[in-house]
Amino acid sequence: MSVYEKLKALGITLPKIEPPVAAFVPFVRSGSLVFVSGHIAKKDGKPWTGKLGAELTTEQGKQAARGIAIELMATLQAAAGDLDKIKRIVKLLVLVNSAPTYTEQHLVANGASELFVEVFGERGAHARSAFGIVQIPLGSCVEIELNAELL
Amino acid sequence: MSVYEKLKALGITLPKIEPPVAAFVPFVRSGSLVFVSGHIAKKDGKPWTGKLGAELTTEQGKQAARGIAIELMATLQAAAGDLDKIKRIVKLLVLVNSAPTYTEQHLVANGASELFVEVFGERGAHARSAFGIVQIPLGSCVEIELNAELL
Amino acid sequence: MSVYEKLKALGITLPKIEPPVAAFVPFVRSGSLVFVSGHIAKKDGKPWTGKLGAELTTEQGKQAARGIAIELMATLQAAAGDLDKIKRIVKLLVLVNSAPTYTEQHLVANGASELFVEVFGERGAHARSAFGIVQIPLGSCVEIELNAELL
Repeated sequence: MSVYEKLKALGITLPKIEPPVAAFVPFVRSGSLVFVSGHIAKKDGKPWTGKLGAELTTEQGKQAARGIAIELMATLQAAAGDLDKIKRIVKLLVLVNSAPTYTEQHLVANGASELFVEVFGERGAHARSAFGIVQIPLGSCVEIELNAELL
Repeated sequence: MSVYEKLKALGITLPKIEPPVAAFVPFVRSGSLVFVSGHIAKKDGKPWTGKLGAELTTEQGKQAARGIAIELMATLQAAAGDLDKIKRIVKLLVLVNSAPTYTEQHLVANGASELFVEVFGERGAHARSAFGIVQIPLGSCVEIELNAELL
Repeated sequence: MSVYEKLKALGITLPKIEPPVAAFVPFVRSGSLVFVSGHIAKKDGKPWTGKLGAELTTEQGKQAARGIAIELMATLQAAAGDLDKIKRIVKLLVLVNSAPTYTEQHLVANGASELFVEVFGERGAHARSAFGIVQIPLGSCVEIELNAELL
């Protein structure tokens, strides 16, 4: 099953990516690696704000991470031309906006990790680091950076 | 002296690595690079919890970082088949669970950095970033992510 | 215009880089990629301390990030021999020492990002992640890690 058939079966439509209004770009390719900029969690097109362990629950954080994974796939499609040309999701860096006592960043990160495996199968199994940070631009609750390998 | 002779001389036995019970994998190889997932500090097989500058001293953090380095070597061995096939330890990302006023993350990180140089010699000299974060999964005191180059 | 002519036009002199007095190195090259260690903000040769959203303003943070970019260029010159041999600035990881409510890390990061684009043109347009962390070694206000591709 192609990545696109899988996305359709999951009822996922990739959003249009908007180039950041900023001094950086959504991704850079170097050799067969693509380095994707940190994407922040959004809800209804606006930053999904709040800290885990304070305003947001782990389940909400997991949903936020899943939403970022969809945005990352849209960016990967722009980078690769075609998601079926992604050889491997290599690594995720998952940053969770956390209260000082919140220790479930790994469960939040699973929201993204599980979707990558669901959509890409074995090619979606990635290395990962997840940890709690004190803030994210615009107050967003989760930010994820990604490395992938292209065919 | 091989890496294994060096480990023996230091009295270090590599642990068995257990695949994470999670939607991600301990490492991904892409070309000659291997990307190793963030490993958290453990003591007696459980997360070594606490914040530097609050419950833990710099010396304890340094020991925790050294312990993670040993776990990372076990994962590298699984990735490379043989630690003598590691061409270079490329980069460490050292995350220190810190109280807001604690500023000795670099000294904590040295616990890992010094062991890599001791065991791998020139091939162990790596680039590094170390900084203080607000929490780590399961409350662990230190987390380290690693990139290496294989022969 | 070469990178050096551009630097001259901007009135920027690259500092001498001093190897870190530590168990790590300023950069490691692997294939065509160079991985540069996290560089901390300095003022008058000493760590530029303080938290954004507490002791420092966004404008000061932006200046600090710009200063780090200059230090990173000095390290890149040491890595590449010649800055005109940099094929691409690939990715920045921008860590901002932040009070828990400070959400303008992206504006701080622009201080570095804009200078890379100004000096390197299209080759300076990079992927980027920026976020708020609870502390930085020696209390510095900003730390930046960089990946670049060499010709």
